[in-house]
This record gives sequence, structure tokens and C-alpha cells, in this order.
Amino acid sequence: MSSSAQIGVTGLAVMGRNLARNFARNGYAVALHNRTAARTHALVEEFGSEGDFVATETAKEFVAALERPRRLVIMVKAGEPTDAVIQEFAPLLEPGDMIIDGGNAHFADTRRRERDLREQGIHFVGAGISGGEEGALHGPSIMPGGPVESYDSLGPMLEKISAKAADGAPCVTHVGPDGAGHFVKMVHNGIEYADMQLIGEAYQLLRDVAGYSPAQIADIFRTWNTGRLDSYLIEITAEVLSHVDAATGEPFVDVVQDQAEQKGTGRWTVQIALDLGVPVSGIAEAVFARSLSGHSALREASRGLAGPTASALSESEASAFADQVEQALYASKIVSYTQGFHEISAGSAEYDWNIDLGAVASIWRGGCIIRAAFLDRIRAAYDARADLPSLLSDDTFAQEIGAAQDDWRAVLVAAVQQGVPTPGFAAALAYYDALRAERLPAALTQGQRDFFGAHTYRRTDREGSFHTLWGGDRSEVSG
Amino acid sequence: MSSSAQIGVTGLAVMGRNLARNFARNGYAVALHNRTAARTHALVEEFGSEGDFVATETAKEFVAALERPRRLVIMVKAGEPTDAVIQEFAPLLEPGDMIIDGGNAHFADTRRRERDLREQGIHFVGAGISGGEEGALHGPSIMPGGPVESYDSLGPMLEKISAKAADGAPCVTHVGPDGAGHFVKMVHNGIEYADMQLIGEAYQLLRDVAGYSPAQIADIFRTWNTGRLDSYLIEITAEVLSHVDAATGEPFVDVVQDQAEQKGTGRWTVQIALDLGVPVSGIAEAVFARSLSGHSALREASRGLAGPTASALSESEASAFADQVEQALYASKIVSYTQGFHEISAGSAEYDWNIDLGAVASIWRGGCIIRAAFLDRIRAAYDARADLPSLLSDDTFAQEIGAAQDDWRAVLVAAVQQGVPTPGFAAALAYYDALRAERLPAALTQGQRDFFGAHTYRRTDREGSFHTLWGGDRSEVSG
Repeated sequence: MSSSAQIGVTGLAVMGRNLARNFARNGYAVALHNRTAARTHALVEEFGSEGDFVATETAKEFVAALERPRRLVIMVKAGEPTDAVIQEFAPLLEPGDMIIDGGNAHFADTRRRERDLREQGIHFVGAGISGGEEGALHGPSIMPGGPVESYDSLGPMLEKISAKAADGAPCVTHVGPDGAGHFVKMVHNGIEYADMQLIGEAYQLLRDVAGYSPAQIADIFRTWNTGRLDSYLIEITAEVLSHVDAATGEPFVDVVQDQAEQKGTGRWTVQIALDLGVPVSGIAEAVFARSLSGHSALREASRGLAGPTASALSESEASAFADQVEQALYASKIVSYTQGFHEISAGSAEYDWNIDLGAVASIWRGGCIIRAAFLDRIRAAYDARADLPSLLSDDTFAQEIGAAQDDWRAVLVAAVQQGVPTPGFAAALAYYDALRAERLPAALTQGQRDFFGAHTYRRTDREGSFHTLWGGDRSEVSG
Repeated sequence: MSSSAQIGVTGLAVMGRNLARNFARNGYAVALHNRTAARTHALVEEFGSEGDFVATETAKEFVAALERPRRLVIMVKAGEPTDAVIQEFAPLLEPGDMIIDGGNAHFADTRRRERDLREQGIHFVGAGISGGEEGALHGPSIMPGGPVESYDSLGPMLEKISAKAADGAPCVTHVGPDGAGHFVKMVHNGIEYADMQLIGEAYQLLRDVAGYSPAQIADIFRTWNTGRLDSYLIEITAEVLSHVDAATGEPFVDVVQDQAEQKGTGRWTVQIALDLGVPVSGIAEAVFARSLSGHSALREASRGLAGPTASALSESEASAFADQVEQALYASKIVSYTQGFHEISAGSAEYDWNIDLGAVASIWRGGCIIRAAFLDRIRAAYDARADLPSLLSDDTFAQEIGAAQDDWRAVLVAAVQQGVPTPGFAAALAYYDALRAERLPAALTQGQRDFFGAHTYRRTDREGSFHTLWGGDRSEVSG
């Protein structure tokens, strides 16, 4: 066997298999490896005609098949399986070789692995890959971290296999050092949770308040998809809502159990945001909404709780309400992205990643689940001003959300009055109103903390920290 | 030196010092130790007359001063300092001796320490202690975990120094094994965050919507404190709001910077809830509200965002609105506690702690920051039915929240329309409406996940998991 493969993929479950095929279809010779060789041979048998595959059976063979510096993509489960594969291959590699982890690793694990392998001279690239099976095959959005020099040779290959945005730009960039890529992928998924929750709330409002059928709501989403909400998730929402279950003749969405499942990345996004002190209330509500939906015993026990009586809307009222829901969805979406990009910015500052937020928006424009026309505008906002304090500081977004706010509030009023749960819309509006508030009750909170725990407070009119002798004469002392 | 002290305290900062004095004032001989002996001697000099103190200078002296089995309370910072002290003392102890960690440790650390020390035959008791400095001195609420047999000799001492509820019951119980005590203390603090946030929102609404002054709002809180909201936090809110700053003559709350600080336990409560799959949206919003308040640059950049124009209320409208706010606050509080107790219940199930939720409510009735008449009713709910699916399943709470819901909704409508941020009230209502919902948009979420990731879904009408061939003829296959 000659050392001729330009890239190798180990871990040939569906994501790994499709990524390997993607490389091969783009003209790269791809070495293949899997714990059980049957899968490797099956791939070659089924898809061998698509390109230049080198099937290998052992780790040694696999490494030997790669040209130097070696580029080895591991596509196995996050956590211990990833560590196990690294431990298997690292001793066989040489300085300058490269391990690319394309799984959904926690960025802290990626940081640790990068640090450990750096000592050996091996470049470790944690690369977030979004787009699911189809994306892996036809072009995903790729978020590689790791040493910047790794991108010199790896970048062009990733650019070739990645999705392309509408303007032709490849949906991949060197996000930043060590764990930056997996961090950004994590936040991408958190934003995806929020997007899906907001869409769910819009659907529920159109159904329960406006009285539309799933098929009618599908049409509304199709219309929305021609406007500023144009996105993959809006598009597939229409597909799902218009689908009719063959077995029952009922709308598909009515025969599916309303208990949402989740993997770990949405949860991580919130947990890390808490560590970084970034309010990501919209993402948190989306994660909580999924877990709440799964507590079936709790829900069953709560169905008898008192609620308001819903009032039916006339046809013209319903249509006007649908327009308001679009405004509320769009405004809430701006807030979700504001929160997500705030988290990326905070992570970048914490870990010295120097992430280009505009570039992140750019590479999410194609291939990934949250791809949307909207991201072009986020990119434009950061391109115009890289140090934007937040997306809401961008004039265009500020104007849009300002124009949407009356309808946004009207939709929330309807939801509150009619008892339709809209945690995402509500959290987004509360965030918006809190950010723009002249004064927050946090001053009272500080007073309470000083009262019961002598935690001290700062004053608005002079420097320093202070404590009031609450149990004494209530005079003020320096803290 | 004779081995005569019944208990020892090492770490004599204000919490440790006051706890040591509390033991001594209750008739126990207390051995004292501190890294720097000056603090030890200062304590004896200043408070020696309060009881029987044994000042020691070295770890060996300290251990030698304790009667067997030794009971050694460590009151140092959570994290590494706690590990360091344990490593210092453990080698000097014998099987059957007891280390009590009275700090704010993360329950996972407590679990690890308990496991490690168990091998040596040492009983490690992680004990949450709430009530701040004053509580430590005059009677805190104490939440000890650790081996149940440790409670035989330790329990009576803790009962003596603990706060007593109005009915005379001591505010301490053996919460459960290993980390159960610190877990419950963590959730206590999370609930405290939520309580404080809800109070802050009520204050803001009374100020911005009803147009009351801080002094008037203090009077309203005083009135509330005579009813079902009777609690320490409501009481001190009135004190803080009625306080006038001597330097400026302004209401104190107006001269305090509105940037709330926090330590780690609120954040932990949310992070652990995410791991356990428990929706604690009210606590999360409280933590986020604090972090948001501290992002001063972001807030400064956002002050120009468009908001609604507020409309003034007449005097009689304001008074009626204040009554509605009381209902909203009470209803939201029920939700906060529902979420907090759900987290304790989930933690108990996850770690086999077998926590008695009624007992937890009982020991929070005195000494701690969230002490309130309300907790008597929570205890009664769990005493009546230990396997209550949630607090909202209790008839009394369900009736109360049902009676409050119209006003709760009216307050939220006012907040939304007038642009007053009420993330806590809103999250609580959304949780309530989601729990009682017949169907949730989670079904749509599952459809989307199946569409883009082949994640499969379950059906309402038969067992199994299914996948629709979205990219094909859209027939359904088994998942």
C-alpha cells in the first residue's frame, strides 16, 4: 500500500461515511478505517465508484496509507470513544501530522486534547460539523478550531467539501485556536434549539389563538419563507405541518407524541453561558421546554389546573394575528441570535480566541440547520462594526425590532390572556425590555444582599463599596 | 490539654466564629483552630465569657482537644481550601471520627470527599448552613448529609444550635446520604435567587406602572408581610425600600448601583437542573437577570432601543393593581418552589438519597433566608402526600394559583404593554401554562428533528419509534 491518501476517515457510521464520500467525490483519495472492518468494506462496495478509496483494516495500515503530513479525521462518539481513538492513533503519528475531530465534543475536552497532542507536535483540530447526514455528504458548515497553521493545508480541502453560501463563499473558516470550533458549534446548536422553540410557539399560537389547521399554518410558514424569515427551519416546518399521516389521515403533527428529545449541546450552551455570565434566557427556555414536554406524569397530573377560556378570532382577525406572530417570531429570533453571539464573544474573550463574529455568521449561511438569509445581515452588521456591543446595537436590527415591538407585545398579550405557553417569546421580550431599562431592580437585590449577608453595594454617585449597618443605626460604612 | 471539647471548629472567619460561639452558648465545649492563630486568640479574648472555648494553635493540638469520636467542623472556602484542610486533618483522625463541612461546597465535591473518607472509616458530613452571619450565631437552618449514623451523635447538637420554627421544631434534619445536604442547600439558594427576582419585579411594577414611591412600596410590602407572603425576604424588602440615604436624602434604592452580584450557588442550581432534565426556568431567569444587570456597556448601548409609552394609573387603579401584583407574586412564588422541589426530587432519585421533601420544607421554616409561613403549607402538602408529582398537584396550591391566575395574567399584560421587564413572572406563567397544556409544540419539534436528523419520533397511537422518509416518498418506517 502506498502512502497516497490525502485524508483518512476513521469511524464510518453514517456521518463518517458520508464525510468520506464527500471528500472522495471532490477528488481526494480517502483512506478508510473502522473498528469493525466490515463497515469499511461495505462502504467501498457500495460507493467505491464515487472516488478513490483506500480501505484499511488496522490502525497501522490506516496511518501508513496517508501521505505526510497525515490528516486523520475521527468521526466517533464524543467523550471516551474519542479519547480511545486518539490514544490508539497518536503513538503512530509524527510531528506535523493532524488529527481532526469532527464529532460533537465538548470544547473543554477539545482544549485538553489539543494541549496534550501539542506536546507531541501533533496538530489537533476540533471541528464542529453541522448539517446532519445530508450535509456531511453534500456540503456541511464546518467550524474548525485548532492551530492556525493546520488550516494552511486543511483549509482548502474543507472549503472544497463544505457547503457554499448563496454568494458562493465556502461555509468554513478557521474559527480560532484550540476549542474555538467546538465552542461555536455548541452555540450554533443552542441557537438551533431557540429557533425551533420559537417556531413551535408561533405554530401553537396560530393553531390555538387564530384557529388555523396545520395545513393552513404550513401555508403561512411557506409565505414567511419568502420573506425575512427565509430559512431551512421555516422551510421544513412547512413540510412537516403539511404532511398527513397515511395510517390515520390525520395531520402528521397530531399523531406524533409531543415529548421532545435532546442531545447534550443545547444544555451545554446554557451551562457554559452561566459560567461566562451571559444571559441566554431564550436558549435556556428552549432547553427547558423540551425537558418539560418529556415529564409526562407531571403533565398528566397538571392538566386539571385552571386556565382562561380561549376566545375565537374572526377570519380577518386571524389573518391580522398571523402577521403579528411573524413580527413576534422575527423579533424573538433577533434576541436569540443576540444572546448566542454574546456567548461566542464572551467565550472568545475568556479563552483568547479572537473569533471573527462576522465570519461565524458567514459560515452558518449554508449547510447547517440554522442556515438562513438572516445570517447575511448579521454578517453585514459585524462587518460594518466588529466591536458591536451586541446585535441589538446594530442600527438595522434596532430599527426592525423597534418596528416589530408593538405586534410582539400584542402577541404576548394574547398568549398570556389565552393561556398559550410562550416561554421563548416572553423571555426574549423580557431580555429586550431589561436591556433598554434605565434602572433595574438589581439595586433592590443589592440592598437585600447587603441586609442579610453584608455583601456590600456600590453607589451611583461615588466610587467604592459600601455597607449599611442595618442591624444598628443604619449609617453607611465603607465596605 | 485534656480531650474534652465536644466539637471543634476550624476556620474562624465570621461564619466559623459565629458558629463556634453558637455551640459554646449552647453549653458545648468548643475547640478552636485557625490557620493563623491570632484569630483564634482574638475570638477567645472577645467572646471567651460566652462559654467553654479551647484555643489551639496546631492541627495536632486541635485534634487532641476533641473527645472521641471527634467532631470537627470545617468552615473554610469551598473548593481547594476545603480539600487542603481535609488533607491536613484526615491523617490525624481515627475510624468513627467525623468531619463536618459547613461551607457552600458543590454537592459533587461532597460526594467525592465522603467516598474518599469513608475508606478511612471517617464520617464526612457535608452540611448546608443558611442564615448568614446572624443565623450562624443565633440559629441557622442546617442541612446535613453524610452517613445516617453520624446523625445519632451530631444531630442533637445541631438541633440545639439550629433555628426553631414557630412551632418549636428545630430547623435541621438528616437530609440524606453523602451530598444530599449540600444539594438541598444549593437548591435553597436557587429558590432564594428566584424569590428575590420576583420581589424585584413586583417592586418595579409598583414603581413604574402604579407610580408609587419607594416609601409607599415599602408600606405595601409591610402589608403583604401580614398575609400569605409573610417571610423574611418580604420583611427586609420593606426595610430596604423605606431606608433613606443620609448623604443625599434620596431613597436608598435610588443611590445603589443596579448591578446585582452573585456567588456560585444559583448558577449551580440551574446547571445541575439541566443535567437532571428539570425545568427551573424561574431560577434561571433570576440568575440571568443578575448577570444582565452587570453588563453595563451592553445596557448603555441598548438604552436607545424603542419601547412603549407608559400610561399613568389613577390612585384607585394603582391600588387595585397593587393587589393584582400580590397575586402575581404569590402565584409565581408557588411556581418557583414547584421547580425547586422538583429539582430536589430529581436529585434524590438520581443519587438514591430518599429525601423527605416535607422535612426539607420544615427545616427551611426558620433560620434561613427564604424562611416563610409559606413553607408550613409546603410541608403540609408533602405530609399529606409524600409522592406528590409536584407542588401544583396539591389541591390547596392548585386552587390558590387558579384563583390568582386572572390577576397574574393581568399583571403580565400590563408589564408587556408598558415595557417593564418581568422575566420571572413571565417564565412562571409560561411554565404553568405549559404544564397544563393538552398538547405542546414538542410534536412539531420531533417532526423537525426527524426531518433533518432522522432522530425518529414516537406516535400517540402505538408503541415504537418511527421515521418518515422525508427525502423520499414520505412513507413511515420503524425507527
